Amino acid sequence: MKALLLTGREQFELVERELPVPEDHEVEVKVEAVAICRTDAKMYASGHRDLVMPRVLGHEVCGTIDEAPGRLFALWPGRACGTCSACQSGRENLCPEITITGFHRDGGFAERLMVPRSSLIEVPKGISPSMAALAEPFACAIHGVKQSSARRADRVLISGAGTLGILLALAAFNRGAHVVLTDPDAHKLARSAAFRNRYAVGAEEVDVRGSFDIVFNATASADTLVSGIRRLAPGGRYCLFSGLTGVPENPVTIFSELHYRELELIGSYGCTRQEIREALRLLARYGHDLDFLIEHTITLEEVPSAMKQLLAGTGFRTIVIFEGSMH
Amino acid sequence: MKALLLTGREQFELVERELPVPEDHEVEVKVEAVAICRTDAKMYASGHRDLVMPRVLGHEVCGTIDEAPGRLFALWPGRACGTCSACQSGRENLCPEITITGFHRDGGFAERLMVPRSSLIEVPKGISPSMAALAEPFACAIHGVKQSSARRADRVLISGAGTLGILLALAAFNRGAHVVLTDPDAHKLARSAAFRNRYAVGAEEVDVRGSFDIVFNATASADTLVSGIRRLAPGGRYCLFSGLTGVPENPVTIFSELHYRELELIGSYGCTRQEIREALRLLARYGHDLDFLIEHTITLEEVPSAMKQLLAGTGFRTIVIFEGSMH
Repeated sequence: MKALLLTGREQFELVERELPVPEDHEVEVKVEAVAICRTDAKMYASGHRDLVMPRVLGHEVCGTIDEAPGRLFALWPGRACGTCSACQSGRENLCPEITITGFHRDGGFAERLMVPRSSLIEVPKGISPSMAALAEPFACAIHGVKQSSARRADRVLISGAGTLGILLALAAFNRGAHVVLTDPDAHKLARSAAFRNRYAVGAEEVDVRGSFDIVFNATASADTLVSGIRRLAPGGRYCLFSGLTGVPENPVTIFSELHYRELELIGSYGCTRQEIREALRLLARYGHDLDFLIEHTITLEEVPSAMKQLLAGTGFRTIVIFEGSMH
Repeated sequence: MKALLLTGREQFELVERELPVPEDHEVEVKVEAVAICRTDAKMYASGHRDLVMPRVLGHEVCGTIDEAPGRLFALWPGRACGTCSACQSGRENLCPEITITGFHRDGGFAERLMVPRSSLIEVPKGISPSMAALAEPFACAIHGVKQSSARRADRVLISGAGTLGILLALAAFNRGAHVVLTDPDAHKLARSAAFRNRYAVGAEEVDVRGSFDIVFNATASADTLVSGIRRLAPGGRYCLFSGLTGVPENPVTIFSELHYRELELIGSYGCTRQEIREALRLLARYGHDLDFLIEHTITLEEVPSAMKQLLAGTGFRTIVIFEGSMH
């Protein structure tokens, strides 16, 4: 089968190779669609904490299995131990033993991959493979909104109007929150206008101190953290949904604000199997308004040349599809 | 009446003056005991966000009122608006209109002070005025433990074995947590040995990554934040109970740990009226084991010369008592 191997920094190799022999409880998945995450582009450019090379990237995967023709499955990319206290308390994304498809193990930038049977979640009828490939990022957004404890009528600000910003907005909307989306790039923000109108997501950017109950970062900019903290009302919560690439200019201010105004800074990383299931349910309900997130459809061979544009982070999702796929 | 006025940096003046005319709902309190908080010493040395000078400091106050002879009252030092969303949701310590006795208004380093009637909470029989002056710091500790959502069997680490560290330990113990107290100063830590034995509070310091569910800082050291975050288990909570005086050496690490390990960094500042009430109940129950926290008893005239030692932060509480007080 064909697989795209990341062999080093900015080095892809398209190779022909065999799948590994299945381990216990594993099943072979034929990839129907795999979305390219900005993290994939970053791993290509500069590595990642959890990346072990050489590696087939791709963790936003949708596929089929030979034994169930015509049925489509989304993939929870984690493999957790199932017995530790994190797993037992429903926080399997925090399992200390976790390995992640596309990070620690080979992922979906290939015609086929091997995954634990329990990681596959069936896609409801009517959702295309490309849309189903968004289940994983949507599940991460749903997870972030849960981490934030957002409730009905909370005022929520999301910084960053890319794919994850949009999915966070929808997950928060679905909980009954009043959502405002912001992005320093007005052109990028404008691209979600129809979506925002439909889901009453504000975009006006009037920087008023203390005007939000919850803020999410869907961008790695450290400045966003500082301005978001400022905009929280007393007792408000900042969900650190994206990791930061830089250092905030004045970290003392952040800690001082947290202390005196009793703010909470809450990490969010990944998602659980159950959240993939929820994401698929929400895609069945709202997916028809998310077509704009599927911006490009390319072949595996075109992935290397797409990386530069993906790194710029100005667009929505690029999806890799395969010959003979269900599209 | 005699009052000790802070007129500028490191400048106290003992003055003779009249109380202001009472506003609506105010009552005149004769101070029986006022504890000196480390924050008082810091305000003396270098000011504070909420301090307006000239000012009579002192917010850990216990006193009597002429109309109720023989009854003792502790003081909630805040004055909140009562109508904003913070007040209405029981978080009056976050009221944007709040003013604080000893910060925005004259406090207890005086023979008498004027306070809202609703700020007085009666002290149960059997608690001395000096012990009752600890109700306010104890209420802050109870508040911090609530902010942390500590539950039965949680593994809790408290950094800083001063008065607030001890009170946090007791508040966490009272919730059923397993508590460990730590302090870089072994001599200071040794001074709470009897208390720790009685309440099964550990003191052994084996720095194991991920070994606590909750960490509190009861010290302003920024390094404590970094090491405490490291020692949290995935999904753990760090309560920023003390403001920080410096900048953590590597803030990037902190934000990265928060994101990837889904930690929470939670501010805690002050307390509510209800928590003063809880503190008094717990003092009635545990107070006999807290006598060691009342280290020195001095007169108002002796306060200026005590400041230097208080700034060093090596001891427990110093209490100011007055001639003819209930002691």
